[in-house]
Amino acid sequence: MVEIPESHPRRTSLLSREKIVNATKEGLLADSAMIAHGRGEAFDYLLGEKTNDSARLAIKESAARLLSSKHPIISVNGNTAVLAGKSLIRVAAVLNCPIEINIYYRTVKRINNLYLLLENEKMLLAQEQPPTNWVGDWNSTVMAVEILGKENDGRIEGLEGPRSICSAKGIEKADVILVPLEDGDRCEALISLGKQVLVVDLNPMSRTAKMATVTIVDEISRVAKLLLEDVVDGDCRPTKWNNDENLIQALKIIAKNATP
Amino acid sequence: MVEIPESHPRRTSLLSREKIVNATKEGLLADSAMIAHGRGEAFDYLLGEKTNDSARLAIKESAARLLSSKHPIISVNGNTAVLAGKSLIRVAAVLNCPIEINIYYRTVKRINNLYLLLENEKMLLAQEQPPTNWVGDWNSTVMAVEILGKENDGRIEGLEGPRSICSAKGIEKADVILVPLEDGDRCEALISLGKQVLVVDLNPMSRTAKMATVTIVDEISRVAKLLLEDVVDGDCRPTKWNNDENLIQALKIIAKNATP
Repeated sequence: MVEIPESHPRRTSLLSREKIVNATKEGLLADSAMIAHGRGEAFDYLLGEKTNDSARLAIKESAARLLSSKHPIISVNGNTAVLAGKSLIRVAAVLNCPIEINIYYRTVKRINNLYLLLENEKMLLAQEQPPTNWVGDWNSTVMAVEILGKENDGRIEGLEGPRSICSAKGIEKADVILVPLEDGDRCEALISLGKQVLVVDLNPMSRTAKMATVTIVDEISRVAKLLLEDVVDGDCRPTKWNNDENLIQALKIIAKNATP
Repeated sequence: MVEIPESHPRRTSLLSREKIVNATKEGLLADSAMIAHGRGEAFDYLLGEKTNDSARLAIKESAARLLSSKHPIISVNGNTAVLAGKSLIRVAAVLNCPIEINIYYRTVKRINNLYLLLENEKMLLAQEQPPTNWVGDWNSTVMAVEILGKENDGRIEGLEGPRSICSAKGIEKADVILVPLEDGDRCEALISLGKQVLVVDLNPMSRTAKMATVTIVDEISRVAKLLLEDVVDGDCRPTKWNNDENLIQALKIIAKNATP
């Protein structure tokens, strides 16, 4: 990849792309991770590469539901871990909940690589300053975040094969799941099990986007930072969320940006 | 990758994805080729994954301009060679023009790999039946298609570094260039040199799309097949082409498909 000048208007997007390319070379991602990332880039471009009002509300709604959950879990796949792993560990620390590595094309090697990545980031994060306005012992709180996903003692009922595997004390037990960049089948299965599924998906027309309890139509690294603010702030309660209306707002933005 | 059932509604798109993933593993494509493909997938999805009326007109216009050109050339990058190489060799045979491999991140190894791919496809194609309605000696016509791009004796004025390199008797000499999936800078440089630049780009908002003489907003493998029909047919003349109007039609389709 070439140097990206500080002044480049699409610098953030290009840096994310570089992260995905490098992580692919390092064996952290599946074959088609870069293709998925490219699809996301196109939708983000059409959304204006910023967090829109309806996405901001969806983030706040997700924070409220995670905060009022008995057993929240943050499920991450390869792309999510690479693009927003650090911020999501911060969110997990504040929520006092585990993170579960759950990937579509499951291989032991990739699970292990992602596990080492997240454990390493956890250790670095524990040395950092806590998030603004958060009070407590940051080091021990971060170190207490469990990274699940290596064990395979849980099942997502309604799915078959490797995609049904999860952690018994993670996704299987959870009542509220934040699961960015999820696949349609798995989203459907989790919903069928009565769980609240909070997804991050740049395509408001995807099956996942349509099926989820709350869909944040926004880019995951922007989402993770705002979600952290909201869970630290804590001043939010779940509403009677109308997810269809939320998706319509995202579609309107795309249609407007594409209107000649 | 998993098996794609014959009945899958998005089978063609998934097969193209598989081709790109495999070609990346074989060293035919640059690091970011899969990301570019993903972006294309998203736009194609928004365009309805079919050749729209305005794209069909742009293909016919491109055929007319190639047929009335003194020195036409078909420039292919890695993704184009992998997705539509075979069809474009057919087009080159009918036009009696060369194909030039011209890639953004130029390495001798990738140029050589793409050269071998295209020479191999040429040999296979020469054994096949000629296109419907085409009359002549197909075998010798196909074998006469020169695959340029290994030599570096030409320059695209206005560009610097490896991206300025081209073939003297290919792009440098050409008056009309069909250059699918082109980068904005290079498109601009070719236009500045007074050449007619016919591009294939799924994003009607890209710099390339806006700058080209004729922009075909459609997926390259669909385009190549229709372009072949048009150059065999031969019944077309260049018009006073309004490319802005053409792009507006594509944008309208995206806006309509995204309208809730």
